[in-house]
Amino acid sequence: MIRISVDLMGGDHGPEVVVPGVALALERHPEIHFALFGLEEACAPVLAKYPALREAATFTACEVAVRMDDKPSQALRHGRYKSSMWRAIEAVKAGDADVCVSAGNTGALMAMSKFCLRTMANIERPAIAAIWPTLRGESIVLDVGATVGADAQQLIDFTMMGAAMARALFDVDKPSVGLLNIGVEEIKGQEEVKEAGRLIREAAMPSLDYYGFVEGDDLGKGTVDVVVTEGFTGNIALKTAEGTARQIAEYLRAAMSRTFMARIGYIFAKSAFDRLREKMDPGKVNGGVFLGLNGIVIKSHGGADADGLAAAVDVGYDMARNNLKAKIEHDLNLFHNRRSALAAAATDASSN
Amino acid sequence: MIRISVDLMGGDHGPEVVVPGVALALERHPEIHFALFGLEEACAPVLAKYPALREAATFTACEVAVRMDDKPSQALRHGRYKSSMWRAIEAVKAGDADVCVSAGNTGALMAMSKFCLRTMANIERPAIAAIWPTLRGESIVLDVGATVGADAQQLIDFTMMGAAMARALFDVDKPSVGLLNIGVEEIKGQEEVKEAGRLIREAAMPSLDYYGFVEGDDLGKGTVDVVVTEGFTGNIALKTAEGTARQIAEYLRAAMSRTFMARIGYIFAKSAFDRLREKMDPGKVNGGVFLGLNGIVIKSHGGADADGLAAAVDVGYDMARNNLKAKIEHDLNLFHNRRSALAAAATDASSN
Repeated sequence: MIRISVDLMGGDHGPEVVVPGVALALERHPEIHFALFGLEEACAPVLAKYPALREAATFTACEVAVRMDDKPSQALRHGRYKSSMWRAIEAVKAGDADVCVSAGNTGALMAMSKFCLRTMANIERPAIAAIWPTLRGESIVLDVGATVGADAQQLIDFTMMGAAMARALFDVDKPSVGLLNIGVEEIKGQEEVKEAGRLIREAAMPSLDYYGFVEGDDLGKGTVDVVVTEGFTGNIALKTAEGTARQIAEYLRAAMSRTFMARIGYIFAKSAFDRLREKMDPGKVNGGVFLGLNGIVIKSHGGADADGLAAAVDVGYDMARNNLKAKIEHDLNLFHNRRSALAAAATDASSN
Repeated sequence: MIRISVDLMGGDHGPEVVVPGVALALERHPEIHFALFGLEEACAPVLAKYPALREAATFTACEVAVRMDDKPSQALRHGRYKSSMWRAIEAVKAGDADVCVSAGNTGALMAMSKFCLRTMANIERPAIAAIWPTLRGESIVLDVGATVGADAQQLIDFTMMGAAMARALFDVDKPSVGLLNIGVEEIKGQEEVKEAGRLIREAAMPSLDYYGFVEGDDLGKGTVDVVVTEGFTGNIALKTAEGTARQIAEYLRAAMSRTFMARIGYIFAKSAFDRLREKMDPGKVNGGVFLGLNGIVIKSHGGADADGLAAAVDVGYDMARNNLKAKIEHDLNLFHNRRSALAAAATDASSN
C-alpha cells in the first residue's frame, strides 16, 4: 500500500480543486491510502461530493491554512504544528505517509519541510526538481530554486538525487545526466561545474550515465534524462521557458485571428491547437519535487486544475512505489565510498 | 557619414550571404561607407554582382579567414594582424570605422576584440548584449556569455551600458532597467544582485529608470527595456528561450500535419504561420553587441541570411549615429561621481 498525505488547502482554488484532483488519482490508483488535512468548514462540503474518496481516506481537521501570499517566516509563525500544510508534512515524518503533496506556496512549503523533516545525512541543502517537457518526452531538471550558488559537492548531490528520481519515474535503469553550462568557447564555465563534472566522471557510478556538459537549448531537446544546475540559474531557465511558451502562444493567438483566412484555418485545425495548448500548459507538467530531506514532498502547481493535481499525486505514487528515498541514500553512500577509495588510491600512488 | 567595417568571411556561408546582406543595408542607408575585409578569391566574384556596393565601399584583401570552429587561441595565433576579422576590428581602433560587424565565431571575435580594442576605462570585463523579442517589442538583455560570475560593480557597469544602448536603439529617453533575480520567496537571491540593485537605486541616474528585480518570465513579457544579469545565467536563459521556441515550432509542425482537418486548416492559415515563423526565427533577431570595449563590435548570427546580416548592420548604424560609445562613457562617469558624492556625504554625516 502507498500512503500519501495531502494538504487540501493549498493552490489558487483550495479544496475545490485539490479534492477532485485527489479523487481522480484514487480512481487511477485504488491502492493509495490518502491522509487528508484541511479546514473542516472548507473541506467537508467538497469531500461529501466524493464518497469513494471519503471512504478510502482519513480526514484530519486543522486550525490554520497557510495563505498563498504568506512569507515563509509568517507561515512558520502562525502555521507551525497546526496548519494543514504542516500536518501533511508531519505525517511523512511520523511514518504515516510515504509522500506529501501540497499545492501551497513554494516558499512556505520548503521552509516547513526543512524545519519538520530536516536534510538527509550527507546532504547540506535540499533541491527542487522540475519535470520538464521535451521533444523526447520528459527530463528532470534540478535545482530550480532552493539553493542559490551550489558548490561542486552540492551539484554532485543533485546529480545523485536527480538520477535516482529518473529511475523511479522513467523506465530507465541508467539515466543520462548532464551538467548545465555555457557554450561560449573562450569561457570554460563556472569552476564548480567543471569540478563536479570531473568528480562525477571519476566515480563512474553504476546508477547513471554521465553525459558531460549541456547547454540551455538541450533542455527542450531532451538531450539527457537529468539536467543538473544550481538554483539561481535553474529557476531563471524554468521561468524563461514558461515565459517563452506563453509569448509564442500569444503570437499564435494573434496570428490566427488577424485575417479571415487564418480564422477559417483555425476552425479546421482547432483540435490540433487544443492538443498543442495542452502540451504547452505549465499546469499539466506538474510536480516540483523537494529532494534531500528526510521524506519526499511534492509541490503541485498553484494554478493547476484537478488533472494537474492528480498528475502530481501520480509522481508521488511512482516515487513511493520505487522507494526513491532509499535509492538516493544508497547512491549517495556509494558515491562517497568511491570517492574515498579513489582518494586513498591517489594517496598510495603518490607516497610510493 | 557612418562608417562600418565588415568581416565578409564570417558566418556559415561567408561572403555568399554577408555581401548580399551588406548590399541590402546600403540600399536602406545610402550614407553608410563600408570598409570590407575578406579573401580576394572568395569575395571578388560575389562583390562583382553588387556594383553599387562595390562603388560605395572599399575592399581590402586579407591573407587569412578565421574558421567557424577555430578556438579563440587558434584564431589569435593564426589570424592576429592579418585575418579579415582582425582587420575589420582594427579599422575601428584606427578610427577608420565607427562600428565593426562580423558573423564569425563568437569566441574568436570576442578574443580578438578584447586583444585589439581593450576594455574602456573603468570597465573590467566586456559584456555581450542580445536584442530579445518580447510581447511589447524588443528588450536588451546583457550579459549573455562574456563574463561568468559578475560582481555588483560589473552588474552596475552592464546596467549603464545596456541603458545607453537602449537609448541609442529604441525611441526612449529613460529606459526601464531590471536586474534578473529569482522569485522563490525564502531566498532573496544572489548577494551581488541585491548589492547592485541598492547602489543603482541610490545613484538615481537620470539616464535610466530602475525598476527593481525581474524574473525569467519577464523576459518574454518585455516588462523592462533592459534586463541585466551575469553571463552564465544570461547565456543559459538565451539558449533556453531559443530551445523552447524550436520545441514549440516542432510541436506545431507535428500538430498541423497529424490530421486531415489540421492540414486543411494549415493551408488556409499558411500566411499567418509564415509570419509566426518569422517572429520565432532567432536569425531575424540579430546583433549580439559587444559592449565595454574601446569600440563597438557586432556579432551577427552565424546562421543568419542576408536579411539577418542587414539587420545587424542596422543595429550598428543606429548605435554609431547615436554615438553609443560617448553615451556609455558619460553615464559611467556620472555614476562614479554620484557614488563618490554619496560616499562623501555618508562620511560627513557619520563624522558630525
